[in-house]
Amino acid sequence: MSYKIALIGSGNVARSLSVAFEDAGHFITEVYSRDIKNARRLAEKCYDAKATDQLDFRQSKASIFIVAVNDDAIEDILSHIHLPQESVIAHTSGTCGIEVFSFFFTHAGVFYPLQSFSPNRRINWNQVPICMEATSSHADTILEGLASSISHHLVYLDSQQRKRLHLGAVLTSNFSNHLLYKTQEFLDEHDLDFSLLKPLIAETLSKALELGPENTQTGPAIRGDMKTIREHLLLLEEDKDLQGIYQLLTESILKRRS
Amino acid sequence: MSYKIALIGSGNVARSLSVAFEDAGHFITEVYSRDIKNARRLAEKCYDAKATDQLDFRQSKASIFIVAVNDDAIEDILSHIHLPQESVIAHTSGTCGIEVFSFFFTHAGVFYPLQSFSPNRRINWNQVPICMEATSSHADTILEGLASSISHHLVYLDSQQRKRLHLGAVLTSNFSNHLLYKTQEFLDEHDLDFSLLKPLIAETLSKALELGPENTQTGPAIRGDMKTIREHLLLLEEDKDLQGIYQLLTESILKRRS
Repeated sequence: MSYKIALIGSGNVARSLSVAFEDAGHFITEVYSRDIKNARRLAEKCYDAKATDQLDFRQSKASIFIVAVNDDAIEDILSHIHLPQESVIAHTSGTCGIEVFSFFFTHAGVFYPLQSFSPNRRINWNQVPICMEATSSHADTILEGLASSISHHLVYLDSQQRKRLHLGAVLTSNFSNHLLYKTQEFLDEHDLDFSLLKPLIAETLSKALELGPENTQTGPAIRGDMKTIREHLLLLEEDKDLQGIYQLLTESILKRRS
Repeated sequence: MSYKIALIGSGNVARSLSVAFEDAGHFITEVYSRDIKNARRLAEKCYDAKATDQLDFRQSKASIFIVAVNDDAIEDILSHIHLPQESVIAHTSGTCGIEVFSFFFTHAGVFYPLQSFSPNRRINWNQVPICMEATSSHADTILEGLASSISHHLVYLDSQQRKRLHLGAVLTSNFSNHLLYKTQEFLDEHDLDFSLLKPLIAETLSKALELGPENTQTGPAIRGDMKTIREHLLLLEEDKDLQGIYQLLTESILKRRS
């Protein structure tokens, strides 16, 4: 089944979705952005898409509207958009609940791809979990067809569960990235090369994902090695921010021992 | 150059080193462990090594002694060990300083492989940074020869710098693993499948290592999205430990914005 899809938004998620949809044989009819230049930039990369900064889609040929914008812009978009009859609209947010679609939208839903998207990186869409929710069986059928055309990994979650999953994404991905950032900052200050840690970080993560993080905890805290912990806290004396993080995470790991 | 090496210790580091050394054409002459059964278990995997629970090596054919034991056991081992004349001894610890070798040891050093070792996982030793330090030029020459026979990545660090690097390993690897552990616990409690996060975690980490973590921070904190942050803190109301971690790491990321 080939769908005609309008993309509302032109950021990383919209861009990556446009590639996935076209690769799966669908057509992008329009790309909307508040800034027409951004809309054009993405539309030009599509097979035959029109750029627009207007939210009146009553004459559009699209039957699916994917709202891939920042969370805080969704409500505003929904309060201004006009859709063709019987079309399906979905947003791609992990945190925004399905209740954002008021009763004006008969066929609506959520289409949340649980992945991190960046320019110039191609994703293996097949493995991206797509978390779905719908307000009507028609929307459900259409969105499921669309999701299964780009990924093997479909998950039905209500808005509360999706929020929890998104929180899990923040705890693991965003916070791990920040730990790398703070560590790099600390090593830089002492003329140490952060890249020395890369093989270790890669192996640790691949091991945790393969064997389960409950089986792969190492380090002074899980060993209860208070001597090393005290030395580390001293080494961080000049970076109170990082010292606080070290202390709290160490205390949390120590609790696993009791 | 082929060396005869005695391994003092039979844990993960000793085991992984034994494979690397033999693959590089060296010979393991003895494996020591306080528990002779553990010594035997590793010695049997070597080409022609003797198991022992005695620290008198004066008759040993080994010219290099690698002490790969827990940090808190190093001093005790060193105070009891007897070595052949002119042999070189080194420990493999990230935190233990070189001063642990008293003046009794003429040729001593540190041979710290910056990697995480587990049973049944083979490491690409070529890429493992080996951090070195020596008390004599003879020890330096021998340990450099040994290190370069198993890895392309040799680094000279004094004990203070090595401690900082080891601290960086704890901050990134151990703490990231703990974040995965706590997140899995949280998702389990709510009947959500942790494995849904795996493609995201893998992509986030590979992106951070490739592009640098200063360029890859995403999530509500770096966007200053206080609405989502408040919602997340509420979702963690029942896990004060994780809530505290969320709050502190979020505050630390928010500081990057100012």
